[in-house]
Amino acid sequence: MSRVYNFSAGPSMLPESVLKRAADEMLDYHGCGQSVMEMSHRSKIYGSIIEAAEADLRQIMGIPDNYKVLFLQGGASSQFAMVPLNLMNGSGKADYVITGQWAKKAFAEGSRYGEAKAVASSADKTFSYIPKLDPSTFTKDADYFHICMNNTIYGTKFHQLPETGDVPLVADFSSCILSEPVDVSKFGVIYAGAQKNCGPAGLTIVIIREDLIGKARDITPTMFNYQTHADNGSMFNTPPCYAIYIFGLVLQWIKDEIGGLDAMKARNEAKAAVLYDFLDNSKLFRGTVVKEDRSLMNAPFVTGDADMDAKFVKAAEAAGFVNLKGHRSVGGMRASIYNAMPMEGVEKLVAFMKDFEANA
Amino acid sequence: MSRVYNFSAGPSMLPESVLKRAADEMLDYHGCGQSVMEMSHRSKIYGSIIEAAEADLRQIMGIPDNYKVLFLQGGASSQFAMVPLNLMNGSGKADYVITGQWAKKAFAEGSRYGEAKAVASSADKTFSYIPKLDPSTFTKDADYFHICMNNTIYGTKFHQLPETGDVPLVADFSSCILSEPVDVSKFGVIYAGAQKNCGPAGLTIVIIREDLIGKARDITPTMFNYQTHADNGSMFNTPPCYAIYIFGLVLQWIKDEIGGLDAMKARNEAKAAVLYDFLDNSKLFRGTVVKEDRSLMNAPFVTGDADMDAKFVKAAEAAGFVNLKGHRSVGGMRASIYNAMPMEGVEKLVAFMKDFEANA
Repeated sequence: MSRVYNFSAGPSMLPESVLKRAADEMLDYHGCGQSVMEMSHRSKIYGSIIEAAEADLRQIMGIPDNYKVLFLQGGASSQFAMVPLNLMNGSGKADYVITGQWAKKAFAEGSRYGEAKAVASSADKTFSYIPKLDPSTFTKDADYFHICMNNTIYGTKFHQLPETGDVPLVADFSSCILSEPVDVSKFGVIYAGAQKNCGPAGLTIVIIREDLIGKARDITPTMFNYQTHADNGSMFNTPPCYAIYIFGLVLQWIKDEIGGLDAMKARNEAKAAVLYDFLDNSKLFRGTVVKEDRSLMNAPFVTGDADMDAKFVKAAEAAGFVNLKGHRSVGGMRASIYNAMPMEGVEKLVAFMKDFEANA
Repeated sequence: MSRVYNFSAGPSMLPESVLKRAADEMLDYHGCGQSVMEMSHRSKIYGSIIEAAEADLRQIMGIPDNYKVLFLQGGASSQFAMVPLNLMNGSGKADYVITGQWAKKAFAEGSRYGEAKAVASSADKTFSYIPKLDPSTFTKDADYFHICMNNTIYGTKFHQLPETGDVPLVADFSSCILSEPVDVSKFGVIYAGAQKNCGPAGLTIVIIREDLIGKARDITPTMFNYQTHADNGSMFNTPPCYAIYIFGLVLQWIKDEIGGLDAMKARNEAKAAVLYDFLDNSKLFRGTVVKEDRSLMNAPFVTGDADMDAKFVKAAEAAGFVNLKGHRSVGGMRASIYNAMPMEGVEKLVAFMKDFEANA
């Protein structure tokens, strides 16, 4: 068996120790004679798995007691509707910052249910930066203010949060959850698909301040009402049990092998530094993002020559660096270096890029 | 390792050969150096997995070309809303047969979006039978007619389909999908959570006639619109990739090891016969369902004495027969003997019940 370095934007790499444990426990979890996939979600043994996952997430992220943790399905795309259906219940207004395709989709869905306003956008430069925000342009009585914390396709990240005052800040953390410490109390809602940084596709994590639950519009499907899931410990119906189990193993890896989110941040900054330092000094490759807005997770880069880009992607794949092709809207390449990507993977990629450049 | 016989109502047993293969392939699927959990859903290699799953499902169930197969999330509970949001678009009326808790929940959700009518119910006798249906009571211009094909909690099954004429028949197949052949052309929509009979929790299979797609209400969240998924081959956003992979392995097991749905039906009938024959002749245990409406999948039974029931459940668990406790609304016991339960498991359970009865 030879594992590749997988730079996919998501789903993407998982820690090898997590996969090994999942393989070992596949037919018999802790001597119970069942796979986690086969367990009744109402059984005591499965209860211990989902409860440990929530407790570990709360501890690792420092989630305050007045926030609920929900394990849902449907991805961030479902949250694009759940947020307005549950929160757009006062003025019916909400502000959005347009920093990429996912932010645009969230805004479009919000606009279907109320008065959504795009307070800023970086569309003018292919979303290669985070727009400066002027709080005087924010809607004072908005029901919420929505951002996409880290923009997977374009490789940008909010390094500073918007000052929204009493307006709840709602953020899509799909591509940066658990990559560094975050002050949860600054947010009304944090949501994330698990498949980029912390688990398999099919699990959506929602962290929501309790006072925002319970005011859903009457048109809201029962399964799209946060209260449905908050009142039932994410067990109104069968949750995505196996994905939650893998997520729990990833959380244990963060706690026990990495040492928490401060250590995770240091590790991710070191990895990103190796890649960005190389890009900043390369004569062939260059990053596409304004330096101060760079993501720790997704680094798009180009040679400026589409044929050369294609040649590089092909050569990299043959050398065991897979999924480096950039999103079609940016072109070129993109290295997604999520939590599970080891430093070794980034160093080897950079060494490969140096070689490629020397021979180009 | 000692595997138990798991009679859970769902999630429940999976074929051991499927679990073994999943364990073997966990770190490296077919030499690609990645786990299926780590694959980009847009990659060629993952494409081959989801395409094979759809092709195998189409072949095994004989799904006509004018039906779409959708791989969704959110369980049957989400379908309870998706069905009315997408289909209640003509008269705004729909008929429901109330055969248990899930049928009731589907009806309640349908009632939120239009004029839902309960044309029949078996609530009077704790849903222990399937009510006789009189087509003259059906709503002529209904947008659809909804049934729950197999009732997990109560152990009943529709052995005859309602004659709904031009009104599309919509059926929840969560606890009986792939258990026997079915004429898909008689249905407008078939939906099923995978976690009972064919995979892990977190995957919902929808089989829908194409002419029913594309007329969703304007309040429908994008992710709840069948068209969103039909237009994008279930890849509008990241699908539940790993659950689809396991589902695909189960389909291969049905094809290669069982020999298709005729053979699966014969196997399931033989298993059910062993259990029901024993119940019909036991002096201690008795089934709770009217004989002609019995499910092949879920067999509730009681001793008539709650203490004795509890004693039996405890003793059975100690002997390796787990999750036999009945649903609180029926009490007693329930043996769910889905596709993956081997004949051996039923025979050993019956032998254990005989012993228990002899010593009671």
